[in-house]
Amino acid sequence: MTDPRNDSSSVRPLRSDLAAKWCIVVLISVVLVGPSTCAAKTRHLRWEVDYKYWSPDCVEGAVMSINGQFPGPIIRAVVGDTISVELTNKLATEGVVIHWHGIRQLGTPWADGTASISQCPINPGEIFTYRFKVDKAGTYFYHGHYGMQRSAGLYGSLIVQAGEGEKEPFHYDGEFNLLLSDWWHKSSHEQELGLSSVPFRWIGEPQSLLINGRGQYNCSLAASYRNSTSTAQCQFRGREQCAPFILPVLPNKTYRLRLASSTALASLNLAIGGHKMVVVEADGNFVQPFAVDDLDIYSGESYSVLITTDQDPRQNYWIAVGVRGRPPNTSQALTVLNYRPNSASKLPASPPPTTPLWNDYNHSKSFSTKILALAGSPRPPATHDRRIFLLNTQSKFSGQTKWSINNISLSLPPTPYLGALKYNLHGAFEARSPPESFPADYDVMHQPANPNTTVGSGIYTLALNTTVDIILQNANTLSANTSEIHPWHLHGHDFWVLGYGEGKFTAEDDDKRLNLKNPPLRNTAVIFPYGWTALRFVADNPGAWAFHCHIEPHLHMGMGVVLAVGADAVGKMKIPSEALTCGLTAKMMAANNGGHS
Amino acid sequence: MTDPRNDSSSVRPLRSDLAAKWCIVVLISVVLVGPSTCAAKTRHLRWEVDYKYWSPDCVEGAVMSINGQFPGPIIRAVVGDTISVELTNKLATEGVVIHWHGIRQLGTPWADGTASISQCPINPGEIFTYRFKVDKAGTYFYHGHYGMQRSAGLYGSLIVQAGEGEKEPFHYDGEFNLLLSDWWHKSSHEQELGLSSVPFRWIGEPQSLLINGRGQYNCSLAASYRNSTSTAQCQFRGREQCAPFILPVLPNKTYRLRLASSTALASLNLAIGGHKMVVVEADGNFVQPFAVDDLDIYSGESYSVLITTDQDPRQNYWIAVGVRGRPPNTSQALTVLNYRPNSASKLPASPPPTTPLWNDYNHSKSFSTKILALAGSPRPPATHDRRIFLLNTQSKFSGQTKWSINNISLSLPPTPYLGALKYNLHGAFEARSPPESFPADYDVMHQPANPNTTVGSGIYTLALNTTVDIILQNANTLSANTSEIHPWHLHGHDFWVLGYGEGKFTAEDDDKRLNLKNPPLRNTAVIFPYGWTALRFVADNPGAWAFHCHIEPHLHMGMGVVLAVGADAVGKMKIPSEALTCGLTAKMMAANNGGHS
Repeated sequence: MTDPRNDSSSVRPLRSDLAAKWCIVVLISVVLVGPSTCAAKTRHLRWEVDYKYWSPDCVEGAVMSINGQFPGPIIRAVVGDTISVELTNKLATEGVVIHWHGIRQLGTPWADGTASISQCPINPGEIFTYRFKVDKAGTYFYHGHYGMQRSAGLYGSLIVQAGEGEKEPFHYDGEFNLLLSDWWHKSSHEQELGLSSVPFRWIGEPQSLLINGRGQYNCSLAASYRNSTSTAQCQFRGREQCAPFILPVLPNKTYRLRLASSTALASLNLAIGGHKMVVVEADGNFVQPFAVDDLDIYSGESYSVLITTDQDPRQNYWIAVGVRGRPPNTSQALTVLNYRPNSASKLPASPPPTTPLWNDYNHSKSFSTKILALAGSPRPPATHDRRIFLLNTQSKFSGQTKWSINNISLSLPPTPYLGALKYNLHGAFEARSPPESFPADYDVMHQPANPNTTVGSGIYTLALNTTVDIILQNANTLSANTSEIHPWHLHGHDFWVLGYGEGKFTAEDDDKRLNLKNPPLRNTAVIFPYGWTALRFVADNPGAWAFHCHIEPHLHMGMGVVLAVGADAVGKMKIPSEALTCGLTAKMMAANNGGHS
Repeated sequence: MTDPRNDSSSVRPLRSDLAAKWCIVVLISVVLVGPSTCAAKTRHLRWEVDYKYWSPDCVEGAVMSINGQFPGPIIRAVVGDTISVELTNKLATEGVVIHWHGIRQLGTPWADGTASISQCPINPGEIFTYRFKVDKAGTYFYHGHYGMQRSAGLYGSLIVQAGEGEKEPFHYDGEFNLLLSDWWHKSSHEQELGLSSVPFRWIGEPQSLLINGRGQYNCSLAASYRNSTSTAQCQFRGREQCAPFILPVLPNKTYRLRLASSTALASLNLAIGGHKMVVVEADGNFVQPFAVDDLDIYSGESYSVLITTDQDPRQNYWIAVGVRGRPPNTSQALTVLNYRPNSASKLPASPPPTTPLWNDYNHSKSFSTKILALAGSPRPPATHDRRIFLLNTQSKFSGQTKWSINNISLSLPPTPYLGALKYNLHGAFEARSPPESFPADYDVMHQPANPNTTVGSGIYTLALNTTVDIILQNANTLSANTSEIHPWHLHGHDFWVLGYGEGKFTAEDDDKRLNLKNPPLRNTAVIFPYGWTALRFVADNPGAWAFHCHIEPHLHMGMGVVLAVGADAVGKMKIPSEALTCGLTAKMMAANNGGHS
C-alpha cells in the first residue's frame, strides 16, 4: 500500500474533520454571538439517479449512482432544516424512490420514499421533489426502497447536526462518517430473479464489505500478516475507487465516528485495534455512554461512538468490519486509523482485530442489552393500548420460498397505501387486516409443521396516539436447527426497545422483565435466533408506514407489514398528487377527468 | 445429436404444421359451408411479463418471459379479429410496453405499445389492456419497445391468417414459423449502461443467433463437418431449451416458412441446403413471387417464402442463418429440415450453406431490388405533398456517442406524445420541429466535419391524408471509411419503397429513377452504406408514430424521429386514460382533481 495522502478520497475525511470542528466552533459561538451559518434553512439538492460503471471492491460492475457518485452525496444538515431533494430518474426503464432512513417525516408521510406505501415509483425521465424537516440531531442515511435497489448501491449518509443552542451531551474534536455496506458481483436484478425463482436461488454471501463504498475483493490490505500467499497484498496509488477510506487523526484527541449500516444482508461487527469505543448515540437518540472493544451493527442501524487517540502515536491502527450472525464467506473490510504524521500506508504493528465468532450470540446479546436511554430521555407510557404479536416464519407459496408474518407474506400492491387511505379507495389492498397474533401452540423451536403460506396486502390500522406494543417472535426456518437474525425497522416513528428474550414470549413470564425505566428509543431492533424482542411506540404520526426486516432480500420475500396510523387524519392531509399518479389513485384522477381521455 | 423426436420442442412444429393444414382446410371449407372456427372474433389473452432463468443458447441467463415462456406465446389470429391482451407487469422495478410490429393500429394509436410515444410505461404490478384489430393477413411479431427490453428477450410471433372468403395468391401444404433473433450474455441493463457511458462501450456482436429462441453457443450442430476440434458437436437429448427447433416435412409438398427478425443488431441471411425459396410476402404484403437461394432479412422485417420438398428424401437439409453487414463474430444459427421418416438427428450429407460475405452489399442490393408488389396491389400516389430528407449520422454529445437525424439525437420525454397532442400540452416536447433536410454541402462520404450534435424531442407534424416522401440518407460514421446498414421501421403505416441509390440523393437525377409502378409496400426498409432509400406513404392514420432505426442500440442512442399525424383528429380521439397516467398528462389530470390531493 503506497501512501494515499495525496489522494482525494483520503483528503475527504480531513475535510469533514475540519468541517465538523468548524461547525462545533460555530455552535459554541452561537450561544455567545447569535445567528450563524448553521441556522435552520432549506437545503436544496438536485439529484440524478443513474447507473454507472464503478469498482467498489476493485471489480468493476454497474452501481446505482447519484450525480455520478457512489455512494450518493453526503447530506449534512442542522436540526430544524428543511431538506428539498429534486430527484430526476435517469434510469432507462426502472422506477425509483428514496427513503430517508430514521427521519420520522412528521406530517410529511408522502416524503418517506417507500414505493407502494408512501408514493408511486418515480418513472424514468420524471422529477419528484422530496421535502421534509430534519427535527432531531443524529446519524442517518438514505437508500432506495424499491425492489432491491439498495443492493444496487443506491444509498448515502444523512447527518443532522445539533441546532443552535442545542448541546450534545458529549464532546469531540473531530468526526468521521462511516457508511457500511455489502456488495455482490451479481446484479440486483439477477438477485431479485433468483429469489422469486422455483427452485429458489439464494443470493449467497456478499463478495465484499464496503466502508464508504470502498472494499477490496482480489487483495487484502492485511495480506502480509498471514503466512498464506493465497491473497495478494493490495497496492494502491490512491485514486482507485476501491482505495480505502483512511481516517487521519492527531494523537490525544477525541473523535466521533458516525456509523451506519445500509447492508442488504450482512450483520456487522466493527473493531479498532487498540482503541475502546464509547457508544453515545443509536439511531438518532442519545444513549447512556458505555465502552466496548467491538460493536455489532445490523442493517438499518446507526451509532455514534467516541474514540480517544491515546495509543502509541508512532503506530497506525486497523479498523476492521466483519460478518456476524451468518456463517461468513466474506473477508473483513479494512481501513486504517492513521495517526498523523505517520504515513497512511504504514501498516499497523499487529494484524487486524478478529471479528467475534459469527454464532457467538451471547456476545451480540450482551452488546444489545447494554444500550439504554440517556438519563432524561423520553420514557415510554407505562401501559399499552394494543399489543400485536408478529411471528416471523420462512414458508412456501406456489413453490417459491417466502418469509411470512403470522403466515402472510407481504405482497406490495401497485397503488400506494397512503393514497388508498386518503381517498378511502376500495380494492387497492386487502380489506381484511392480518392476524394480531399466531396460534398459541406454534412451535418456534422447530420447522413449521405446514410450511405453506399465503401472500397478502392487508394492513394493521392503528388509532392515532395509541400506545402499541409489538412483540417480534422468531422461529425456526425451513431448515432444521436454524433460526436467523432479523433487524426490524419502523418507518415514521421511533420505538422503545423494552427487551429481548429467549423462546416464545409469554406475557405471564415476560411482561415483568420488560424495561420501562430507561429503554432506548430506536428505529431498528434486532430479533435474535429463537428469541423475541418487545417494542413499544406511540402511533402519533398519521400515515402509511412500513415495518419490516431490513435485510433487503427478506423484505423482497415478504418479510414486512404495513401500519396505517390515523386514517382520518390522512384523509385531511395534503399530499402532492405527483406522489399518487399510479394504480387506483391515478385511475380515480383520470375518472374525475372524464374517464376516457 | 440424438433423435429429438420424442421432445416436446420438436413436436411443436408438427403440431403447428397440422394446425396450419387444418386451418387451411377450414378456410377452404368456409367458402362452401359458411361460418367456421376461423370467423372473426376477439381473442382474449392474459399475459404476465417477468424475468426467468433460461438457456437460449445453452448458457443460462435472465430472459424476459411472457407467461414463463421464451420467446413469448405465438398469437394466431384471422383477419378482422380483435386482439385483446391484458398485460400484467410482474417485473420488480421496470416499466414495460409491447409493440405489435407491423400492425398499423388504424384508429387505435394508443395501442401501439411505444413508451413515451403512444403510452406511459406500465408500472410493476399494474395491468394494461391492448385492444386492436388485425386487418391484414401476414407475418408479424411483437416486442418490447422500452429501453432495450427487446434485447432482453421480450418478443414473440403474431400470425394473421387470411379471413373467410379471402384467398392468398399461393398454395401450401403446411407452414412453419421462424422468429430469428440475436442474443448476448451481457444483460440488457449492462448494454444500456455501456451505450450511455463516457467513454462509450459498444455492446459488441451477439454471442448467438437464435431460431425461435434456440441457439447453441458452446457447441455446433455441424461441428463434425470441420477438421477443427475447437468446437464440440452438440449432443441433445431433446428437451433442452437450446435444442434446435426441427422442421419435419414430407417429401414433395410445399411449405410456407414465415420468417421474422426481431434481432437487436444483426442483419441476417437465411439459406436452406439444396432448396430454393420463393418469396411471396414481405411485412404483411404480397410480393411478386421470385426464387432465391438465400434471403437477407434485417431487424424489423418479415417474409413468407415457399419451399418445395423436392430433394432426395433419404436426406435431411440444413437451415442456416448467418450475419450480414457487420464483420461477423457470431456462429451461424442452424437447424434441420427433416424429411420424414428420416431421423431428425440424421446429419445432412453436406455442411451447412455458407452465409454470403458480410460486406457483399451487391448481393444484398440485388435481393432488395427484386422485391416488387404483386400485380393488383395498391399503387402509390404519383406525387408527394411533402418530402423530408433524413440524414443519419453518428455524432457526439457531452462525450457520449450518439446517432442523429439531421443532427438531432432523439431523446424521448416522460410524457407520451400522443397525450401531449391530444391535450395540446405545452412543454411536453420541444415545440420546434426538427429540420426537413440537411445542409446541401454535407459530405456523406466522409466523417462529419463537426461531430457535435444536439439532443431533442421535437416532432414532424404531418397533415392528415397528405402524401409524404422520406428520403433516408446514409453517411460515413465517426470512423473513416465506415458506413453501416440501418433498417428503418415506420409505425402506424406501411410505406412504398420507391428505390435505393448510391451516394447523395438528388431530385434532379434520382426522381426519375423512382419506381412508381410496382414498389413494394412495407413497414421496414433498409438503407445501405453510403446510400439512400426513398419511401412514400399517405399519412392517413392519426396518432403519434415512431419512425426509427430498428437496431435497438441505435434507437437507444437517438436514431429515430416522431411523426404526428392529424393532430386535430387526435384531439377528438378517445384514448384510455390508463395509457396516459404519467408525465404532464398525469399532472393535468391531477390538477383537474384539485392539484394537491
